[in-house]
Amino acid sequence: MKNADRNIYISNTDVDKAKEIFFREIGDKLVSYEEIDVLNSLNRVTYEAVFAKNSSPHYNSAAMDGIAVVAENTYGANEVNPKILAEGKDFVYINTGNLIKEPYNAVIMIEDVIEMEEGKVKILNPAYPWQHIREIGEDIVAGEMIIPSNKKIRPLDLGALIAGGVEKLKVYKKPKIGIIPTGSEIVEKFEDLKEGKIIDSNSRVFEGLVLEYGGEPNRISPIKDDYELLKNTILKAVDENDIVLINAGSSAGSEDYTVNIIKEIGKVLVHGVAIKPGKPTILGIVNEKPVIGIPGYPVSSYIVFELFVKPLILKYSKFEEKKEEIRKAVLSKRIVSTLKNKEFVRVNLGYVKDKLIATPLTRGAGVTMSLVKADGVVEVPQSSEGIEAGDWVEVKLLKDEDRIKDTLVSIGSHDLIMDIISDIMPLSSGHVGSMGGIMAMRRGECHVSPIHLLDESTGEYNISYIKKYFKGRKMALIKGVKRLQGFMIKKGNPKNIKGFSDLTRDDVYFVNRQRGAGTRILLDYNLNKLNIESSNIKGYEREMTTHMAVAVSIKSNSSDTGLGIMSAAKAMNLDFIPVGYECYDFLVPFEYMEDEKIINFINVIKSKEFKDRVTKLGGYEFEGTGDVIIVGGLE
Amino acid sequence: MKNADRNIYISNTDVDKAKEIFFREIGDKLVSYEEIDVLNSLNRVTYEAVFAKNSSPHYNSAAMDGIAVVAENTYGANEVNPKILAEGKDFVYINTGNLIKEPYNAVIMIEDVIEMEEGKVKILNPAYPWQHIREIGEDIVAGEMIIPSNKKIRPLDLGALIAGGVEKLKVYKKPKIGIIPTGSEIVEKFEDLKEGKIIDSNSRVFEGLVLEYGGEPNRISPIKDDYELLKNTILKAVDENDIVLINAGSSAGSEDYTVNIIKEIGKVLVHGVAIKPGKPTILGIVNEKPVIGIPGYPVSSYIVFELFVKPLILKYSKFEEKKEEIRKAVLSKRIVSTLKNKEFVRVNLGYVKDKLIATPLTRGAGVTMSLVKADGVVEVPQSSEGIEAGDWVEVKLLKDEDRIKDTLVSIGSHDLIMDIISDIMPLSSGHVGSMGGIMAMRRGECHVSPIHLLDESTGEYNISYIKKYFKGRKMALIKGVKRLQGFMIKKGNPKNIKGFSDLTRDDVYFVNRQRGAGTRILLDYNLNKLNIESSNIKGYEREMTTHMAVAVSIKSNSSDTGLGIMSAAKAMNLDFIPVGYECYDFLVPFEYMEDEKIINFINVIKSKEFKDRVTKLGGYEFEGTGDVIIVGGLE
Repeated sequence: MKNADRNIYISNTDVDKAKEIFFREIGDKLVSYEEIDVLNSLNRVTYEAVFAKNSSPHYNSAAMDGIAVVAENTYGANEVNPKILAEGKDFVYINTGNLIKEPYNAVIMIEDVIEMEEGKVKILNPAYPWQHIREIGEDIVAGEMIIPSNKKIRPLDLGALIAGGVEKLKVYKKPKIGIIPTGSEIVEKFEDLKEGKIIDSNSRVFEGLVLEYGGEPNRISPIKDDYELLKNTILKAVDENDIVLINAGSSAGSEDYTVNIIKEIGKVLVHGVAIKPGKPTILGIVNEKPVIGIPGYPVSSYIVFELFVKPLILKYSKFEEKKEEIRKAVLSKRIVSTLKNKEFVRVNLGYVKDKLIATPLTRGAGVTMSLVKADGVVEVPQSSEGIEAGDWVEVKLLKDEDRIKDTLVSIGSHDLIMDIISDIMPLSSGHVGSMGGIMAMRRGECHVSPIHLLDESTGEYNISYIKKYFKGRKMALIKGVKRLQGFMIKKGNPKNIKGFSDLTRDDVYFVNRQRGAGTRILLDYNLNKLNIESSNIKGYEREMTTHMAVAVSIKSNSSDTGLGIMSAAKAMNLDFIPVGYECYDFLVPFEYMEDEKIINFINVIKSKEFKDRVTKLGGYEFEGTGDVIIVGGLE
Repeated sequence: MKNADRNIYISNTDVDKAKEIFFREIGDKLVSYEEIDVLNSLNRVTYEAVFAKNSSPHYNSAAMDGIAVVAENTYGANEVNPKILAEGKDFVYINTGNLIKEPYNAVIMIEDVIEMEEGKVKILNPAYPWQHIREIGEDIVAGEMIIPSNKKIRPLDLGALIAGGVEKLKVYKKPKIGIIPTGSEIVEKFEDLKEGKIIDSNSRVFEGLVLEYGGEPNRISPIKDDYELLKNTILKAVDENDIVLINAGSSAGSEDYTVNIIKEIGKVLVHGVAIKPGKPTILGIVNEKPVIGIPGYPVSSYIVFELFVKPLILKYSKFEEKKEEIRKAVLSKRIVSTLKNKEFVRVNLGYVKDKLIATPLTRGAGVTMSLVKADGVVEVPQSSEGIEAGDWVEVKLLKDEDRIKDTLVSIGSHDLIMDIISDIMPLSSGHVGSMGGIMAMRRGECHVSPIHLLDESTGEYNISYIKKYFKGRKMALIKGVKRLQGFMIKKGNPKNIKGFSDLTRDDVYFVNRQRGAGTRILLDYNLNKLNIESSNIKGYEREMTTHMAVAVSIKSNSSDTGLGIMSAAKAMNLDFIPVGYECYDFLVPFEYMEDEKIINFINVIKSKEFKDRVTKLGGYEFEGTGDVIIVGGLE
């Protein structure tokens, strides 16, 4: 789409202002109730107080197993002068819950009844009137309020409502939420997922969130970027629902259609909110119903949903909002922001020595995994140009705090074994390369740093780096695994790559790791040794942050080869030319060695389960895995 | 049922011991998984870690709207020497998300493109390779772990799973829970609810709880007390489910059948647990599957479900148990317990001056409302004979602590207007009569006490009592309502009751209020004045704790008349003979008058909504409602 066709008039409305405009316009007119059967009322919210129709019990009943008697006839009974009672005349046998019929007005427990011949019994004590009788209304009195209005019905409440004779009750209507995924590139089924196509996942997230907040989702299949088609679809959705969500594809086209259609058939209240991600949000009204245009990138779509759609659904469903858990945390990495918008930064959280540390995750709007992995969100206000490392920030927790407390925070080199460990114990694993890990550890951001750093002068791994970067500090190095590094190449090695000297060939595209990664250091060490100029390597400047990313680049023909671990090559079904084994170990400050999380971690990497699963990945050896080497602290 | 037919051999097994025996026998053999479609996986728990099948994006795509170019061809462009590019040859127009095809390897944003004639554009800056391109796997790399095992799938996770190409995944199977309500007196439908019959409500509570804990409930209609029928029903349920629950009717008969049937077709591990309520619990195994006999009383059935069934369901569903919130509270009333069992006492909670006060609710096993109204549970250990008032206890919260903090705690006289207030603001209302309220206030258990106490010497209400019981303390009396007291009688007044002198008639059955109730004081005052002997009144000793309970007793022919408020008579469609208006006011310690809850309370009783709703009840007048009288504090 060329410049001339674009709709680039988009405002930058403050988020609170946008909410105010939108919610004022909507008002309360759409909140309504329905009368439903009590048996369908679980988890619905009462529209008005519910009063008992019947008493419970609704008749006088025996509270014990025994005999029903007329109390006045038992007066005077004692051990010396027992009373003899005749069945049918003076008493009837009765079980707990049975109706007490006139003239009986008391129950004697079966244990206190001495049975005799011919339907006669003997009692040694008198009964007082109404003893062991559950009187009408002992539990619930007709007319009594069982639950007030605006209360979500729990299983327990259901029992009381039924016992109180309530057959039907008024609850808030569930708002119907129409969900329209749009974009010609969006497909619904995995089999339609060709190059240039994107699978629709946002609308499925919306469905789940709508259910969670007490609404009824009505999702339809993705709509192509066609003005008339989209217009008719929106009109139909508005007709059939209380709220309509239009999820733009990631292309600008569909967003433009949405705003123009809403302008044509209704009113656009806000187009463009000062938030990041989520700026191209559209808040509109069609036929008095709220219609929201949600941007296409997964993170944007989630944040816009939480900001604008969630409060809208709760307004109708009357579900109570879970209280936000806010904690103070120390920011471990600088966040740069602009004055243009309020930014929502996903962070990993970990308690390191009783201090909560917040480490920002990737900020791309497209990075779903940054949401899945996030433990919390830091809001950077519009008035701020960013937050410095070491500053205290307020974090909204996305996970249970106890779980965060139990989580071992690892920052450093990437390896596939980290996934396995995090499947066995609570582990948050950040991948910034070995040197990145060492820097994070110096800043106190993590409990453990996986590193594999080759000392070019000694050929030894890790120790000399620890001595250099933690001078005078007592550190522990937990031995990890030996892993095979080498060239990942396409199946069958079509470019006939044999070693480092092939990297400078004109027909070979290389893919590199980022500076500070142990694998990058290994590359540079070898290039140096062989006097190969890095500027002669095509793709040397193309940096990936994980072994798997390198493997995927080769697999998808973006490049021909890259250096990485054998397990990543195997996982992607690539061929592999070994360069050599290296030590992938775990650096820990000595004072953490008593920490339960570290003790647990050592137990995990020593376990049979861990070794069995790692062995299946291929390219690993276990030599002293779990052993601890103390480094430094004596200088 | 006579003594001889009964099964009275029931043990008193310690609850932890019972759990241990039961869970050891069951083991893990029934935990299993199933493979399901990702679209059905919301709120299911992963059986194993889930790894991405596809990368996302799965092709190199434009991160911006603009033109795709070959970076190397743009080198050297600047403002003085712009590069002119031809569409189709040097560039193609591209939208965000579009596939980047070879040979293109960079995107220039549309804002930086100057359009010219004949499909040509001008650029003023070079592009670097891979700029504004979302590379394959930028979000999710194939082979990467998306979520670990034992994790409940959130809407967010669903998005990542779909984006990662996961079509199917393994989750824990939902355990199927067979629910069998039993007892010949139990009916399912409201229209079958005759005298001697009880509506089945427990099994509906079970259904809700099973869903909450991640199981699949299979409830059947109530089964009569018939040995063979019940046996066959249990066998069928065991066949079709993973866990079977048999809910006894409240009669002993059905419980006896259950234990004998399990003995015949399986094994009874425990019969009788040392808990109150809930003692007659049966823990058994049939065909290797757990079968639990749950007592019939609503409170017992709930407690037994939570103790034994909930952990069983969670074991299979792998739903995480919500962390129990335990708080220290001061017990306001003595709890007497026996050494025979561990007792679970439901309590109301309220923060009075930053101290959490726990007030025990009715302890009857049949009192469903004690569960509905409970804010927490206090466990009295088996080794304890009880807990004294003023002692600190541990309370397990059943409500959100913030909600408890917001709740105004009222203890005192009962009136229907308390239901209305609690529907408008958070209010916990305990009904112990006016004098009971004064005693509770002296012990510091409540914020406010509703009272209507007649001073026989002056004919004035409340003030003299406050002066007497709060000597030297500054108290506030918030004026409430004037309400009409009188005789409630059956419609049409069949016994021709006209006043107090009729109460001694032989054919008149009276129903009284408890000692300390203002209404009781009003009665005794009048009897005294008229020289009527209370011992000549049939039913004088029969005490009810609320106006509604008195009304229900008359309505259901248990008695002919009782003293009470007009609104209760009207609610029960009874006739009414007025005796006079009285002042129903609210006593508050003066120092609470600044408390937000009290301020809110005064606003509520002054509101139009409150007065309108109370007027509808009938028999009330508003004279200075909400005015405050200061009493004492100067002596």
